[in-house]
Amino acid sequence: MQIPSNAVSTWITPRVSETDGCGHINNTTLPVWFEAGRRAFFRAVSPALSFDNWNMAVVAMQVRFQRQIYLAHDVRIATWISKLGNKSIVVSEVALQNEAPCALGECSYVYFDYASQTAERVPDEIRQRLAPMLCETMKAIAS
Amino acid sequence: MQIPSNAVSTWITPRVSETDGCGHINNTTLPVWFEAGRRAFFRAVSPALSFDNWNMAVVAMQVRFQRQIYLAHDVRIATWISKLGNKSIVVSEVALQNEAPCALGECSYVYFDYASQTAERVPDEIRQRLAPMLCETMKAIAS
Amino acid sequence: MQIPSNAVSTWITPRVSETDGCGHINNTTLPVWFEAGRRAFFRAVSPALSFDNWNMAVVAMQVRFQRQIYLAHDVRIATWISKLGNKSIVVSEVALQNEAPCALGECSYVYFDYASQTAERVPDEIRQRLAPMLCETMKAIAS
Amino acid sequence: MQIPSNAVSTWITPRVSETDGCGHINNTTLPVWFEAGRRAFFRAVSPALSFDNWNMAVVAMQVRFQRQIYLAHDVRIATWISKLGNKSIVVSEVALQNEAPCALGECSYVYFDYASQTAERVPDEIRQRLAPMLCETMKAIAS
Repeated sequence: MQIPSNAVSTWITPRVSETDGCGHINNTTLPVWFEAGRRAFFRAVSPALSFDNWNMAVVAMQVRFQRQIYLAHDVRIATWISKLGNKSIVVSEVALQNEAPCALGECSYVYFDYASQTAERVPDEIRQRLAPMLCETMKAIAS
Repeated sequence: MQIPSNAVSTWITPRVSETDGCGHINNTTLPVWFEAGRRAFFRAVSPALSFDNWNMAVVAMQVRFQRQIYLAHDVRIATWISKLGNKSIVVSEVALQNEAPCALGECSYVYFDYASQTAERVPDEIRQRLAPMLCETMKAIAS
Repeated sequence: MQIPSNAVSTWITPRVSETDGCGHINNTTLPVWFEAGRRAFFRAVSPALSFDNWNMAVVAMQVRFQRQIYLAHDVRIATWISKLGNKSIVVSEVALQNEAPCALGECSYVYFDYASQTAERVPDEIRQRLAPMLCETMKAIAS
Repeated sequence: MQIPSNAVSTWITPRVSETDGCGHINNTTLPVWFEAGRRAFFRAVSPALSFDNWNMAVVAMQVRFQRQIYLAHDVRIATWISKLGNKSIVVSEVALQNEAPCALGECSYVYFDYASQTAERVPDEIRQRLAPMLCETMKAIAS
């Protein structure tokens, strides 16, 4: 498992409410944590984190689970942009506990005008803000 | 534990993601279920369930836990209006599993104009729609 | 979008807490709903829905989003087994609102002995209980 | 609003999935955040954060909402023990955004033996570990 050196790290403290009866973190928690890891990405798109100009719609997400995650230790979410297309963006993510990769994620967005309900080209100013977290040679999940 | 005969029943099937490592339903799930039980109440306030005219702000909530709730059996949420004041409304709720009361809830709202950020009198047309679920002689939690 | 006639239907009433600031159902809610749709599958594996013999570990999940889902209308989750392998099972799911497909899901499990931490063959009695929801000629997401 | 100087601070970054269609943090998120703020408390009771000796059951919780909480700014949860009784413990909490108190919480636990299903005296070694976060002269919510 390789993680680009420019990936953004978000530290998550697991919550009791995120475990399940099997005794570890429930699988539906991972998409929530991966979304939490995309805060820098959201800020690049909507600098004030305002829903009035959110302009991002998820079209697909994928998670691979490699190890169970437990309540007791913090989790690092590593997040980078693995594809910056014309109208679409792919965000790749890895969840690590005790530095061991536990889950891999990929989430595809289209830049979206909610008013006209159409996909549009990602504007240049957003491309510039996304550039520091871009690494198109690595993906979290090999296709 | 008394429940008024005009209480609205909402059936909830417990989800794996709502349990925790202790093996039963996590306590933070109850406010979520009680909010789910208030759908008829929300419809009375905003008939199309549109966030454009939501006009309800929670000012307080309270939950008492009496029995653990398990994954295997459906849960009934019984919901009624226990106070319909000038600007405020109290919703009382009970969660029952196998007809045994497991949790009691009380949630206080003010009728709220988000634009002016002020509380206002609950309009008459909403009072009429709330009337069928009103029972001011019973509360879920004795004060 | 084709759904097998033996798919299990689970009706979900969207919750306010499952929406987000964009005004519709948050994308992280879909894995929760799809897990809720797998209750009949869980019962086939662990008839009493007891965590003591759960024996199912998620190895991968995938969701494709086709339409936004709103608070106002109930959602049907259609669930079937699209692959019943030696040690692994794939569950396919579709979320429909007003009978329009809004999200497609695929979730892969291995039959897992938590004590020995190894994958094992799905036992025959579980295969028999899964048979009524099996349709290996249809998937929710085309590979 | 007074907060004891020995309150434990937990910083929470609000998540998109924790907002709702009204555009701010959903009220059911607060019990989740307050539970997250009780991690030091949980560690005092179960040092390895293991569910095998959890021994804490929630009997009541209460939340007062004073200000809406928004996605854009981190939230501080201040947590202290406001009552350390024979068998019961009350945890008081305040959620602050931009240092303004937004929500107040009180959560009552009993020390509980799940095997015998009875409440028991909080053991001395746990009392010692709870002492640094004890302030019985302040409550979050005035009775």
